[in-house]
Amino acid sequence: MSKLRATAERVVIESVTPSVDGGRFPSKAAIGDPVTVEADVFADGHDSIACVLRYRKASARAWSETPMRSLGNDRWRAEFTPFELGVWHFEIVGWVDRFDTWVAGLAKKVEAGVDVSVDLVIGAGLIEEASTRADARAAKTLASLAKEVGDETAPIADRVETAMAAETVEMVRRFRDRSRATTSEIRWPVVVDREIATYSTWYELFPRSWAQEPGEPGTFADVEARLGYVASMGFDVLYLPPIHPIGTTFRKGPNNTPSAHPDDPGVPWAIGSNEGGHTAIEPALGTIEDFRSLRDAAVEHGLELALDIAFQCSPDHPWVTEHPEWFRHRPDGSVQYAENPPKKYQDIYPLDFETEDAKGLWSALKGVFDHWIAEGIRIFRVDNPHTKSFPFWEWVIPAVREEHPDVVMLAEAFTRPAVMYRLAKAGFNQSYTYFAWRTSREELTAYTRDLAAVSHFFRPSFWPNTPDILTEELQTGGRAAFIARYVLAATLSPACGIYGPAYELRESKPLHEGSEEYHQSEKYQIRVWDLERPDSLAPLLTQVNRARKAHPALQRFGPPVFHETDNETLICFSKHAGEDVALVIVNLDHHHMQSGWVNLDLAALGVGPGEKIMLHDLLTERRYQWDGSHNFVQLDPAGIPAHVFALRGHSRSEEGFDYF
Amino acid sequence: MSKLRATAERVVIESVTPSVDGGRFPSKAAIGDPVTVEADVFADGHDSIACVLRYRKASARAWSETPMRSLGNDRWRAEFTPFELGVWHFEIVGWVDRFDTWVAGLAKKVEAGVDVSVDLVIGAGLIEEASTRADARAAKTLASLAKEVGDETAPIADRVETAMAAETVEMVRRFRDRSRATTSEIRWPVVVDREIATYSTWYELFPRSWAQEPGEPGTFADVEARLGYVASMGFDVLYLPPIHPIGTTFRKGPNNTPSAHPDDPGVPWAIGSNEGGHTAIEPALGTIEDFRSLRDAAVEHGLELALDIAFQCSPDHPWVTEHPEWFRHRPDGSVQYAENPPKKYQDIYPLDFETEDAKGLWSALKGVFDHWIAEGIRIFRVDNPHTKSFPFWEWVIPAVREEHPDVVMLAEAFTRPAVMYRLAKAGFNQSYTYFAWRTSREELTAYTRDLAAVSHFFRPSFWPNTPDILTEELQTGGRAAFIARYVLAATLSPACGIYGPAYELRESKPLHEGSEEYHQSEKYQIRVWDLERPDSLAPLLTQVNRARKAHPALQRFGPPVFHETDNETLICFSKHAGEDVALVIVNLDHHHMQSGWVNLDLAALGVGPGEKIMLHDLLTERRYQWDGSHNFVQLDPAGIPAHVFALRGHSRSEEGFDYF
Repeated sequence: MSKLRATAERVVIESVTPSVDGGRFPSKAAIGDPVTVEADVFADGHDSIACVLRYRKASARAWSETPMRSLGNDRWRAEFTPFELGVWHFEIVGWVDRFDTWVAGLAKKVEAGVDVSVDLVIGAGLIEEASTRADARAAKTLASLAKEVGDETAPIADRVETAMAAETVEMVRRFRDRSRATTSEIRWPVVVDREIATYSTWYELFPRSWAQEPGEPGTFADVEARLGYVASMGFDVLYLPPIHPIGTTFRKGPNNTPSAHPDDPGVPWAIGSNEGGHTAIEPALGTIEDFRSLRDAAVEHGLELALDIAFQCSPDHPWVTEHPEWFRHRPDGSVQYAENPPKKYQDIYPLDFETEDAKGLWSALKGVFDHWIAEGIRIFRVDNPHTKSFPFWEWVIPAVREEHPDVVMLAEAFTRPAVMYRLAKAGFNQSYTYFAWRTSREELTAYTRDLAAVSHFFRPSFWPNTPDILTEELQTGGRAAFIARYVLAATLSPACGIYGPAYELRESKPLHEGSEEYHQSEKYQIRVWDLERPDSLAPLLTQVNRARKAHPALQRFGPPVFHETDNETLICFSKHAGEDVALVIVNLDHHHMQSGWVNLDLAALGVGPGEKIMLHDLLTERRYQWDGSHNFVQLDPAGIPAHVFALRGHSRSEEGFDYF
Repeated sequence: MSKLRATAERVVIESVTPSVDGGRFPSKAAIGDPVTVEADVFADGHDSIACVLRYRKASARAWSETPMRSLGNDRWRAEFTPFELGVWHFEIVGWVDRFDTWVAGLAKKVEAGVDVSVDLVIGAGLIEEASTRADARAAKTLASLAKEVGDETAPIADRVETAMAAETVEMVRRFRDRSRATTSEIRWPVVVDREIATYSTWYELFPRSWAQEPGEPGTFADVEARLGYVASMGFDVLYLPPIHPIGTTFRKGPNNTPSAHPDDPGVPWAIGSNEGGHTAIEPALGTIEDFRSLRDAAVEHGLELALDIAFQCSPDHPWVTEHPEWFRHRPDGSVQYAENPPKKYQDIYPLDFETEDAKGLWSALKGVFDHWIAEGIRIFRVDNPHTKSFPFWEWVIPAVREEHPDVVMLAEAFTRPAVMYRLAKAGFNQSYTYFAWRTSREELTAYTRDLAAVSHFFRPSFWPNTPDILTEELQTGGRAAFIARYVLAATLSPACGIYGPAYELRESKPLHEGSEEYHQSEKYQIRVWDLERPDSLAPLLTQVNRARKAHPALQRFGPPVFHETDNETLICFSKHAGEDVALVIVNLDHHHMQSGWVNLDLAALGVGPGEKIMLHDLLTERRYQWDGSHNFVQLDPAGIPAHVFALRGHSRSEEGFDYF
């Protein structure tokens, strides 16, 4: 510790953002989105300092750099915009700038009428030094400037003017003395993803319920025939539960009954039979050619397929016999099934991440991703990642993305916050959240603020329902609840999704009172859906998704700004992206009309004092004009219990609304 | 990145506190004070985990360890108490505990009436495994327990009873399987200081004004003769401005006039003359023997001497000629003096931390510390550390303390927060603060909260005045201001100090209106002080310091808890240490009597519902009894405008006050 390694690097760089655990994990960005970097940069004493942000793809040799600008109080900021997918690095370089210090001192001395003759000689020396760092052409100019500034026979005023001329200062700055510069001790990593990792609208469906002929099990071909239905609602990710052969041993029957009839289809997450495991396709759904056809047709509809990755095995999975060492065995010779004592899940064998053959297991699991990537899949929804070893994810996600940086993984972990955040740190590009259970204004506001604090590495996805989650609110709230919850999901979070058609058809019956499981859940049986039902919410979902597509403000997390309301059943928030501003108001009471006053934070809306506020309701196409921060709203659960406004403050009302 | 290094270490350790910049810098502790360590520790899935805190002196080989206990939500905590000065390290080790997992599962299964015969065989195996890790004696017991639990001929109930017996569980836990344990990636450093780094009461004086014969320049001997005066007020650190020879070139005269008369004594911070530099003693103060005598006499009075370290030179300092390379030179051959353009400080040459001979300079500066350490000094007040290179401090403080871990350094940096905090990170044990300029209830509260956020590495010292700082409040607030400000300093912060006798004699005349400099400042001239003045605040300071000494609550930062008052000129806060609770109320209006209601946070005071609150005013010796949270107070600037209560809630009022 006491070894003397004296250094002349006087600048200190600290409190750098974005930073995840001090650079231990990457922060996240979307390609083409600027990454804003800030740091405390300072030196001892009163000298002027300068600093630059350096950035590059991790695989590149050469840094690009951009000057940082002072925000005051030792804080500096700069941005860079990654233009390629993959891991990027940034670092910061700062130095005490003798020339800037000298110019600033000279200006003050001249103003105070102090003799600056010696100062001019010092400055001439600094300009001369810059010339030695310059290219030949600039060197000549700098040498001549140095001579002028240092010319003791010339009038002081002329020499000062030359020294302080913008051209002089700029030219010297081009060739600054960075020999004593400090480089930040850490290179901060940033993972750059496709935009779809940030902004995406998911639709989950069970193909086996999508038969065109009711009564038949649905196939990939049936889904392909109905892609227009999903695409026309404005979804862009079509997520399929596991498509692999389903085990028969301990197969579950309808409503999670412990034994199945021979023709019960089983749970898609009980993966593996003698037909194959995680790389095979359930024959009832079709062939690999059918799958490829669906995948390609989806693309034509503007949809990208997302597959489910559930790293667990049915007792019939080929791995159980081929790789017994990947499972834990009980003294009676049986394989240890999943359990959460006293509950047993005998249809599921967990993989043993403490196996002696961890290397073999990890490689095989990566192989599952590789297989489907080779089949053109780039989005994976990972089932229960929090029941698999964290070091595994920390290895496999970067390993997969090193070869395919366009891969996006959504973590399905409904568990404690530290665990969910750790999975995001390990590499998951998107994460399910507690949104489904945040219902009051206070809960939604607090939860959004929690997410804002981690938004540099944890990208939320808001789902009002999933095949496992039918909330009490949806069970009891009726049509208004389904509308309100989708509006909230789709406007609070840039990534959102639903499990349909249960959602648009307002499926709301639970397995039993107090349960969040669906009655006659598709997890256990085939359902028949009437997609043409006149009371379907499909048109409303379409309208909401259209608003998202038209408004950049809704395509990034923000974070949202919450505005006061005098009625706690009304929630009001806004988001903006550049000039684009969205203002959302939702009635959280699904049974009664609610009205009240909202008190808008006009500055957050970009509305100047005295400007009128033009509002275009993107759900109803109605237009409003508001004046000032206090405004009255009334929302009826019998109609559309939400406003999604595109908004613009405007001082010249005569121009009308035509900019909408 | 993609290299496969598969691991079975499933536990994750993160969000460890205390941690300064992710372990880049040490946190701080006082010897004998427990260090509370917390971390998020968790694994995938639902298995039971366990973790331990390991700690040792950095120089030691063997770790001590203590189990961490769960606080819920993945947070774990443990404490360790460093018993030697110097740098300590801690780390955390966590693992999935198969046996604990098994016991928890068994209990649930037994309760649910599930068949556990196979489970008992598994458990017997785990106990058997523990026996292989145990010492011979325990191994025998464990093997026999394993046999009992695994005995398939014995009744299940008996085997369950044996397995779940506390003795079995505790014995297995003594020999846990830690082969797959995760050790935290970082070893967090903690600097362990003497208590005086945390809790100390400083008195600053200029020896040259302490002559026993007025008119003569005071000497070390004069100070020695008056040590009783300082000690009896309850101070424990006697801090002397620089005691070195003072330069004559550009010497300043009274009231900072640019030229001095031949008999003006000069500024002590203009260090160095032909009599010597930073290791010499100003002859007017006495000899090195006089200094040693003062040092030893101070100890007998319970006082420790603190010296001022000001790394700058007068033009007459020997280094200027012996080491011209340590100074920057101007083109006219002169040495670059200190300046803050357009101001010049021609009596001061700064050292050039960009010198080519940084190694020589840094060594020489460390030599100054070494010299005075050899003279028995262990406390240094460092002048303007923020105008010297940060890397220098980051090297020199640990280097000095590696040899002398009892050294304490106080940073005199009144500058931007990031800079002040960085100096503390670099190693300063105590720091001056903005306290002098935080005057309103809101400012004091907010500032205290700012300090609480950094209190694991930044130890505040609160000074109501210094020779450079005579605040407007003290200039205009009269006697009440001097009392109130000392009470605030001495109760909000465990480290505090005053510059006397200017403080207790209420010196309040500024150099000119709008200035914070003293008129006839001792920095430039010798003053004569009448320590016996009947209106001296010495008795009041004595009372406050006595309260600090008697009450552990006032000896640590806390942080203070602020209680509501309905009059913003009344500030109310409490601190506690174990059973000891102090409650302080101060009138911030130095000109008017103020009264109002305080609304006590009874839980923060440790007062139970319905308990009476017994208060002992440590300044007036008056006793009060309060009932409930709302209480009326009235404080008069004409009297003592503050309460410093020792407090205890008590439900049996008949016992009276005798426990005070």
